Amino acid sequence: MITKDTSIGVIGMGLLGGSYLKGFKKAGYCRLTGVDRDEKAVAYALESGLAEKASSDPSVIADCDIVISALYPHVFVKWIEENQKYLKAGCLLTDVTGVKRSVIDEISRILRSDVEFIACHPMAGREYKGIRFADETRFENANYIIVPTGKNTEEALQTASEIAGILKFGNIAVLSPEEHDRMIGFVSQLTHVIAVSLMNMSDNSSLAEYTGDSFRDLTRIARINEDLWPELFVLNKDYLVEQIDGFVREMKQFRDMIENEDLEGMKQKLILSTERRKAFD
Amino acid sequence: MITKDTSIGVIGMGLLGGSYLKGFKKAGYCRLTGVDRDEKAVAYALESGLAEKASSDPSVIADCDIVISALYPHVFVKWIEENQKYLKAGCLLTDVTGVKRSVIDEISRILRSDVEFIACHPMAGREYKGIRFADETRFENANYIIVPTGKNTEEALQTASEIAGILKFGNIAVLSPEEHDRMIGFVSQLTHVIAVSLMNMSDNSSLAEYTGDSFRDLTRIARINEDLWPELFVLNKDYLVEQIDGFVREMKQFRDMIENEDLEGMKQKLILSTERRKAFD
Repeated sequence: MITKDTSIGVIGMGLLGGSYLKGFKKAGYCRLTGVDRDEKAVAYALESGLAEKASSDPSVIADCDIVISALYPHVFVKWIEENQKYLKAGCLLTDVTGVKRSVIDEISRILRSDVEFIACHPMAGREYKGIRFADETRFENANYIIVPTGKNTEEALQTASEIAGILKFGNIAVLSPEEHDRMIGFVSQLTHVIAVSLMNMSDNSSLAEYTGDSFRDLTRIARINEDLWPELFVLNKDYLVEQIDGFVREMKQFRDMIENEDLEGMKQKLILSTERRKAFD
Repeated sequence: MITKDTSIGVIGMGLLGGSYLKGFKKAGYCRLTGVDRDEKAVAYALESGLAEKASSDPSVIADCDIVISALYPHVFVKWIEENQKYLKAGCLLTDVTGVKRSVIDEISRILRSDVEFIACHPMAGREYKGIRFADETRFENANYIIVPTGKNTEEALQTASEIAGILKFGNIAVLSPEEHDRMIGFVSQLTHVIAVSLMNMSDNSSLAEYTGDSFRDLTRIARINEDLWPELFVLNKDYLVEQIDGFVREMKQFRDMIENEDLEGMKQKLILSTERRKAFD
């Protein structure tokens, strides 16, 4: 159980790591430690009082009961390889990684046996980078997905739920790594590939004055972190490519209906999409 | 020039026709006439005081100086064929049709020589149908596109601009029929085909609880008028099919980058889409 005495460490004080620190601090938790290789992020965390301790030296994490990695996936794995010696025996390790199968496999393979890892995904990304954009209210109404494996203890699951509660996530769900990655491939990764492709397909700057809500809604997420997302796409490529192929098939079917002037076929498609979308409102 | 004495008629009192009447009325114009084959819409317009005169009999339009068709494209052409005899000599006819080349061709071919038609497109559709959803504030900040041909008079262009001003459209633009249809094929029709295809590609109801802003933004316009849009798609099929093909090509290129784990290629795509999207903010 997390108490006000629990010492919480965050590795990687970017947008999400910084938001975790802000969220815990706002909720009255003071034993907060931040690690970042960027000295500017460290200085910001100390000067703004976001963390009690912060350093670019990973050993600062040594007394933490809970350690949250907010690193990019490959950096997270490398960090554990190099620095897990500093983790306190019996501490709980969790993360924020946006795809889960590969990171769970890799961390499970290398992690010390006296540290438990429970994978979590706060669905609360934004198009900006860096601790200065950290914002604890970002988590309100957001989804927090816990992605346990058979090796996780009940206690770890409980602690992960408590973290989501403290940070005021709107919805907590538990999914298997496969369920998580399939869902993310559809609701998040496919939608970003669509937005980027729509934005990139032609030089449309001359059309800016005519774009109404439709175009703006569909391309909002075309502003995207160019370092993080390609890595996430590749780590989920089997599911994501399957989703893209399914979507392209559906687009082509509709395209052929237009070409063949199949008014009734299109009408049925629009009735279906209207019905389905209503269920989301 | 439109004055408070100008008699304005609206044919088809649905969502848009009703919004025109509401907008004119709000702006202090009282000589308003509505025509609709649906007696319920006629009764609503009279009872709510939206129109001074309203009827299912098209001859009620006979004293109007300006006549606005808010009918579906094929209904508009048929209406003119059957009822243009009731139009006052010298009156100005305009419309709201979402694609322009075909409707301009057809109306020009059949219209009486003593009536001028100037094509206009208020980009202010919604997913609802019917006069009860009419809303004059819908036009605020929206685009009003005037689509003249070489046959239009300066006076008609001026009157079309005045209509947009009275209804408080945010932006008035003048485009040729080809420019208009190409632009609409991209910013409006393609985006609706994408939203519908994303919504329809799989039964995703079980994922509703995980959908964040991205999925909701991309599918909002999947609630769509199933009678109107197939007709608009077919009337613009050359441009629309070309846009769909271009979009699908871009999706496939990105898909192959994922498959080939081309991180650098994807990064360049995301940098481009981010740059372009920024220009819209």
